[in-house]
Amino acid sequence: MSSKYLLTIILIGTITFSCKQSEEKNKTVDLTAEQELIFPKGQKITNNNFVGNAWVEMLVLADSVNRNSVGSVTFEPGARTNWHLHPNGQIILSLDGVGYYQEQGSEKKILRKGDVVKCPANTPHWHGASPDTEFIQVAITSRVDGPTEWFEAVTDEEYMK
Amino acid sequence: MSSKYLLTIILIGTITFSCKQSEEKNKTVDLTAEQELIFPKGQKITNNNFVGNAWVEMLVLADSVNRNSVGSVTFEPGARTNWHLHPNGQIILSLDGVGYYQEQGSEKKILRKGDVVKCPANTPHWHGASPDTEFIQVAITSRVDGPTEWFEAVTDEEYMK
Repeated sequence: MSSKYLLTIILIGTITFSCKQSEEKNKTVDLTAEQELIFPKGQKITNNNFVGNAWVEMLVLADSVNRNSVGSVTFEPGARTNWHLHPNGQIILSLDGVGYYQEQGSEKKILRKGDVVKCPANTPHWHGASPDTEFIQVAITSRVDGPTEWFEAVTDEEYMK
Repeated sequence: MSSKYLLTIILIGTITFSCKQSEEKNKTVDLTAEQELIFPKGQKITNNNFVGNAWVEMLVLADSVNRNSVGSVTFEPGARTNWHLHPNGQIILSLDGVGYYQEQGSEKKILRKGDVVKCPANTPHWHGASPDTEFIQVAITSRVDGPTEWFEAVTDEEYMK
């Protein structure tokens, strides 16, 4: 085998390896981009107003002038709030995943990235993740006329209906 | 030149070309992922309260009970609001890109994905994109004590300071 030929073989090996490395690197970037969150996942919610695992990152707390609180909530698949209402309603911005939203007396709605809900005042409702996919949402809650009122848990029958 | 050697040269060319193609393909996927929007870009803003090109997608309109309006605003590089104030303040959620925010009498802040601003009530301020990168933000504006008051444009000197 001539040295020229040997050198060529080594060159092919080097190019192929570099190419593979380059692809692997890009794959990693893709994965990171998909998983990149806008807001931190926050703290696990430990009160009894939720079924399943959910996390909240409070982005803004209400004060006496701007009486809105804003939080990013992440629901694990199957997790949901209990039934509850807000005296001034609530705004839900769906950021990622697949979620459920239901007002008392209405059918359950499926929420996906970009969907927005304006939940009416004093209307019992619940929201959470779908059974198979987590759900990330921003909740904007006005405290002008008082705090959230919490009710009973959403049963599995209500959740799956 | 032997035919074996010629074949090897062709092989190197093919591998190098495939590698390049593969990288280009991955680049396109990356770009698409980066450009995936949560909310639609909306309508181009045509009033005189902005310098440069900006778009707004109104997500929620204020009503008599929930007096918050929520909009997603996209600023082209260099675009910004005029100076303005809100009687109940404003909440800004930075979704993507690189933006600027400044309150009267304070230094300009740089906003990136995930940054949140609670702009105080009755405080003149402006916000917009950085010179090189667009900026996407959600603005939550309470109308409890009245509408936004608009003032003069942000000069290039103020913008670049």
